[in-house]
Amino acid sequence: MDKILRVDMNNLSTHIEPVPPEWTALGGRALTSTIVAGEVIPTCHPLGKDNKLVFAPGLLSGTTAANSGRFSAGAKSPLTGTIKESNAGGLAAQMFGRLGIKALIIEGLPKGDNWYSLHVSKDGVSIAQETELIGKGNFAVVEALEKRLGKKTGVLTIGPAGEMKMLAANISVKDSDSKLRSHGRGGLGAVMGSKRIKFISIDDSGAPGIQLADREKFTAAARVFARALLDHPGTGQGLPTFGTAEMVNIVNEAGGLPTRNFTYGRYEGHETISGETMRETIIARGGKPRHGCQPGCIIQCSQVYNDKNGKYVTSGFEYETIETLGANACLGNLDQIAEADYIMDDIGVDSIETSVAFGVAMEGGVLPFGDGEGVLRMLREEIGKGTPLGRILGNGAGNVGKAYGITRVPVVKNQAIPAYDPRSIKGIGITYATSTMGADHTMGYAVATNLMGVGGGIVDPLKKDGQVELSRHLQIATVMLDSMGLCLFIGFPAADIPTCVPALMDMINARFGLELTPDWLGGLGVTTLKTERAFNQAAGFTNKDDRLPEFFREPLPPHNAVWDFTDEEIDEFWNF
Amino acid sequence: MDKILRVDMNNLSTHIEPVPPEWTALGGRALTSTIVAGEVIPTCHPLGKDNKLVFAPGLLSGTTAANSGRFSAGAKSPLTGTIKESNAGGLAAQMFGRLGIKALIIEGLPKGDNWYSLHVSKDGVSIAQETELIGKGNFAVVEALEKRLGKKTGVLTIGPAGEMKMLAANISVKDSDSKLRSHGRGGLGAVMGSKRIKFISIDDSGAPGIQLADREKFTAAARVFARALLDHPGTGQGLPTFGTAEMVNIVNEAGGLPTRNFTYGRYEGHETISGETMRETIIARGGKPRHGCQPGCIIQCSQVYNDKNGKYVTSGFEYETIETLGANACLGNLDQIAEADYIMDDIGVDSIETSVAFGVAMEGGVLPFGDGEGVLRMLREEIGKGTPLGRILGNGAGNVGKAYGITRVPVVKNQAIPAYDPRSIKGIGITYATSTMGADHTMGYAVATNLMGVGGGIVDPLKKDGQVELSRHLQIATVMLDSMGLCLFIGFPAADIPTCVPALMDMINARFGLELTPDWLGGLGVTTLKTERAFNQAAGFTNKDDRLPEFFREPLPPHNAVWDFTDEEIDEFWNF
Repeated sequence: MDKILRVDMNNLSTHIEPVPPEWTALGGRALTSTIVAGEVIPTCHPLGKDNKLVFAPGLLSGTTAANSGRFSAGAKSPLTGTIKESNAGGLAAQMFGRLGIKALIIEGLPKGDNWYSLHVSKDGVSIAQETELIGKGNFAVVEALEKRLGKKTGVLTIGPAGEMKMLAANISVKDSDSKLRSHGRGGLGAVMGSKRIKFISIDDSGAPGIQLADREKFTAAARVFARALLDHPGTGQGLPTFGTAEMVNIVNEAGGLPTRNFTYGRYEGHETISGETMRETIIARGGKPRHGCQPGCIIQCSQVYNDKNGKYVTSGFEYETIETLGANACLGNLDQIAEADYIMDDIGVDSIETSVAFGVAMEGGVLPFGDGEGVLRMLREEIGKGTPLGRILGNGAGNVGKAYGITRVPVVKNQAIPAYDPRSIKGIGITYATSTMGADHTMGYAVATNLMGVGGGIVDPLKKDGQVELSRHLQIATVMLDSMGLCLFIGFPAADIPTCVPALMDMINARFGLELTPDWLGGLGVTTLKTERAFNQAAGFTNKDDRLPEFFREPLPPHNAVWDFTDEEIDEFWNF
Repeated sequence: MDKILRVDMNNLSTHIEPVPPEWTALGGRALTSTIVAGEVIPTCHPLGKDNKLVFAPGLLSGTTAANSGRFSAGAKSPLTGTIKESNAGGLAAQMFGRLGIKALIIEGLPKGDNWYSLHVSKDGVSIAQETELIGKGNFAVVEALEKRLGKKTGVLTIGPAGEMKMLAANISVKDSDSKLRSHGRGGLGAVMGSKRIKFISIDDSGAPGIQLADREKFTAAARVFARALLDHPGTGQGLPTFGTAEMVNIVNEAGGLPTRNFTYGRYEGHETISGETMRETIIARGGKPRHGCQPGCIIQCSQVYNDKNGKYVTSGFEYETIETLGANACLGNLDQIAEADYIMDDIGVDSIETSVAFGVAMEGGVLPFGDGEGVLRMLREEIGKGTPLGRILGNGAGNVGKAYGITRVPVVKNQAIPAYDPRSIKGIGITYATSTMGADHTMGYAVATNLMGVGGGIVDPLKKDGQVELSRHLQIATVMLDSMGLCLFIGFPAADIPTCVPALMDMINARFGLELTPDWLGGLGVTTLKTERAFNQAAGFTNKDDRLPEFFREPLPPHNAVWDFTDEEIDEFWNF
């Protein structure tokens, strides 16, 4: 019998609750957004007593469905002020799934200055005071907890950035290599820090496991689904070979590679940071060019990146981090970026928000463009230690812009625009503008259609035609993936391979003994998006917030593309 | 013939324009808000090319009307994102009035890194490059310009804070003692800094002077008006005797004196910072207990505060600064507060925003409560020099709250709440919430009615009854004063002495040869408020922004008062 775990930090009490009937067919983002919208006062202070932090595995998490282990975290975001869902790989989703925990809801703020941890097991959730690991980096937390609780323990943790309630703070999830995956974007680590919870450990021993209503049907569908992933050129070839860094050369070619704080669309040093270069480097140094962020991943777009001596540096080394430090901050040096990636994971800051913040800081003269050593020093000594400069940087790109009076600040709803310039890739610009959670490429990854023809036919990235409809379609579809616990890249075969979506529906129905249709799934996407938007409107957001910064009206070389959507054209997005 | 001066910093050109007929009967705030609302894109970046900085004297500025020398500055505020008007004493309003300059409008941003100055004279306005005074404090600017241009020169200037585009930066105006009065609140100094204008000098030699349509009528009315000011106990006795610091004991008694970052409503050291103590100290040290912020002031609520050796420290030493540093940051030491006041004037930061920011910083552990030496050091070495900590503090209370993850942050629309706790003085809370420019007591000074019976009868400060109507009435009346160039305290006799408002109308009509009625003036107040609100709505503000921070729901000792207005009750404000 699935259950809800609830923790009240006001009085340090915990509760096990039955799953309300209306939450039964919800999971992942659909569930966290429903809970946040239903239980959190939209105008509350995100770091105050009225915000709630909600964790939920996807509908398929814990099953043998490929790539179904994404874990959703939701709250009101302290970075954007909007509702927020952020999902990550790692072990947590599958452990929660097997434990029959539909959601963990953490509310209230403790009195006093103590720090706490939570422990989740088949018996529910318990609270303990924590002293030893306070102030420690995420890797040290994982290492210590494996010693304390055993190698198999699951971990959710915040680094010093989360403890200091920095707005770029993330929540990290232990993966099967005892490394970290991150709930990035939106500053959910600060919400966990505000509740004075350093980590959550998970023990799934004795878990009831997943009950399948129709095992045979499920297994057959899971096979079809996996086949679709392997057959699609994106998920079967491109991503496994080059990781997401395959995008460096593609986006550079398209003239949409943000360079020197979004001043140029191509970076002359793009080869130094490309997926091709990364792959060669990894192989030459005995790293792993393929690696999964979660057990059961068959795409394996992660990797293990070693240094010149063959020593581990980082994994989960994503295009967006590589681009925003490599081209946008002009570092042009994979080794420095990899080291920065490791430090950001350790201190627990979102690598997109922080990297874009460095680009703005460079424009403000805080450090020169290309100063990789400066970036590494500031990550360790300033952000990691919470100096005043570290507080400025750790609060994200918008905050750096305010601190230094900069107007070229690539944010929407105060969240940094990632590694795709919306002037030359207009579909993603519509996603940045209209997303319920601020600028975020993963909310509706129009890049795939604009540049790679996913979904059967290219929507010209330089033209406005069709972009609003494309982004809308993708944002609705993304909610579905985020709610099933599926990796975003499932969107590629789902769009292109006809057997994929029916297999998904078969798996859900065989899991729960339901007779749901693809229309139901689409309805879940629409309903969830509208629920999220209603929360934002109740918090004070209007269509005036669905806008890109004015500097995007300046032409971007090489195409001299400008952001030319009218307000009315953007607002058309919500007409559904 | 009155004229409009326009400066385009994009191409460093200047223009003299006739006054459009619809601006003829506008002045001060009514004019700056009309121009900003009409010419500035509401969603623009406040520090970008599309914002405009507008200066305008009041309708009566330059005449012999008592206390009519307030100068209005308007723009989109970089601190609040709303429309902003801020008025100050000093010489500028009367010089502009005599020169027949209805408004000076500065638009655009210059290319490159040069700094500039403007010079205003009977011939119009000119632009010059400036190097010598860049980086200098406001007092050094005034001193240098008096050497350069003669003792009589008028000056508008920004300090280092404005050059660095800090959000608490103000624009300072030279007064008749070569000291400074400030356009505080809203960060207009950052707008001037963004346009790379260090100062504006004014030469009124050869000015045509004020043309009165009916000199006899004007003189008679001016006499009646001055009599009303002298007869009212507030403007005739209280303010001239103790300055605005008379409020320390009154507000403390009422239990609304913000103490220790708005945690208590009374300060046990209130006698150390009271108006009575200040007066005794000033007299004992050979200072001036009475002093005017503008020629023609007959209230004289300013003062000259000397140190123990009889050496000048500061003037324009206001209650709000004394309270927010003295009680709210617990300094309890007038000498330290006076020195801080001088430094804030010199580096050019709003003393309310900055003092409240220190209270939040103290709660965040940046320095201890009561650490006056720390405050002085941080003003000089951090804010004045633009270190990272200085950038955090110089961007105001809301920014400090974000930097250190604090939830007890007394701001509305990101502007600091001044020295009256809205839980115990509820009328001013309605003004904070609904003002078109963020928290600002001067937008509708309900304290006077809540605590001192101005306007014929006390509206109980601890009850909700009548507060919305009171604030609405006062906010409309304040626009009228701000548009005539009159000091806010004219509101006291205007409310209580029947001859005052007719005398005001007689002066305006005799000045311009018009037949306007008090209804017209009230209409100007209503229209201007609605124009300002429409700008804010077009910029994305909604009634959700008309709210006090949630911590005001916590009881405030000694009355254990809470902020208990419902959203609907607050929103009733705009029903007119």
